[in-house]
Amino acid sequence: MPKLVNIKKSVMAADEEHASFIRNIMREKGILMINMIGSPGSGKTTVLEKLLPALDLRCAVIEGDVATSKDAERIAATGTPVVQINTQGGCHLEAHLVRKALQDIPIDDIDVLFVENVGNLVCPAEFDLGESFKMAISSVPEGDDKPLKYPSLFHKARAVLLTKVDLLPFIKFDKSTFWNDVKKLNPKASKFELAALEDKGVDELVNSIKDWLNEVRGN
Amino acid sequence: MPKLVNIKKSVMAADEEHASFIRNIMREKGILMINMIGSPGSGKTTVLEKLLPALDLRCAVIEGDVATSKDAERIAATGTPVVQINTQGGCHLEAHLVRKALQDIPIDDIDVLFVENVGNLVCPAEFDLGESFKMAISSVPEGDDKPLKYPSLFHKARAVLLTKVDLLPFIKFDKSTFWNDVKKLNPKASKFELAALEDKGVDELVNSIKDWLNEVRGN
Repeated sequence: MPKLVNIKKSVMAADEEHASFIRNIMREKGILMINMIGSPGSGKTTVLEKLLPALDLRCAVIEGDVATSKDAERIAATGTPVVQINTQGGCHLEAHLVRKALQDIPIDDIDVLFVENVGNLVCPAEFDLGESFKMAISSVPEGDDKPLKYPSLFHKARAVLLTKVDLLPFIKFDKSTFWNDVKKLNPKASKFELAALEDKGVDELVNSIKDWLNEVRGN
Repeated sequence: MPKLVNIKKSVMAADEEHASFIRNIMREKGILMINMIGSPGSGKTTVLEKLLPALDLRCAVIEGDVATSKDAERIAATGTPVVQINTQGGCHLEAHLVRKALQDIPIDDIDVLFVENVGNLVCPAEFDLGESFKMAISSVPEGDDKPLKYPSLFHKARAVLLTKVDLLPFIKFDKSTFWNDVKKLNPKASKFELAALEDKGVDELVNSIKDWLNEVRGN
């Protein structure tokens, strides 16, 4: 079906233009933009709830969800500007949606923009939103086989977060398997282990975010 | 972009033909076919590992994964005929893939065909594989907000499995929220709670599968 492929390509190309537009704005304003991707329930929102108050930087969040504004309400409770995108069934965010959401983000007054993608370990990895980089979030209860089973995201992510490590005593999970497989797919990825509800690992992530912001700003 | 929509529709229509073909075969052979859908790490394969030896029925499994044959190897270890479909990045199974896999399934000698879909709570819910019904699998660590956040699957599933209930003591999870939201979306869904690694809830599921098989066979 070459016709479908062609049209798909042109749709992708149009979205690449939106991604470039976003990337240029982020560069111009010196904003670090992180595209957070992980399964439903991997802990993306909880990490943000802990990270936002701990970062002494000006942040904003774009929340992507199939339905509801539950996550955006949780972020708003931290006092951080947040915009909810409901994809109405769509399984990932696309750059044109993010570009529209940016209209309600105070881009002249922020240092870091977090985009929490739709809970999905597959599709969001394939879409460029104009972000500085993708961050993979994978939780202990999902199992240590996830990097090899869902390689695309782990291959592309600049940072990989292993969350809910407080559950390790109760779950069969081999950390060396997980991290060795991440290393095979992506030797340069920054690695973090978090138990966000217990504030474990949050400081290390805060420090790296400051380094990444300096890098974006050429400091 | 009406052109895209039209072509998409025709692709969907072609796949509906494959789904009808599969549904007709299942009816003709009196096979119960269950399309298992849930997030990565929700416990789909583990449920099958416990279910297959406990069912005194002739079963077969089709495993859908983005990459690797890890799950098929786990199923093969139970002595059950299994075919692995690798979607090479695709986020869900489609009927034409299942139809092809059926060529390697002994359909004249089975009672139940389980299809374990790609780990994804969004996309697989939208595709008819010709199954008897969809089964939603959601695990305690994913959180009690998943039905409302990912409503399509929970709305369509005939059976909903809440897995990993042995982790309830260690995780903030309100069972009544979860089940009330399932009920709102789908009042008729059959509900199951499992801790498969501890064999909890497996017998109830075994009994229901026998009932569903009788129903398929008009007994």
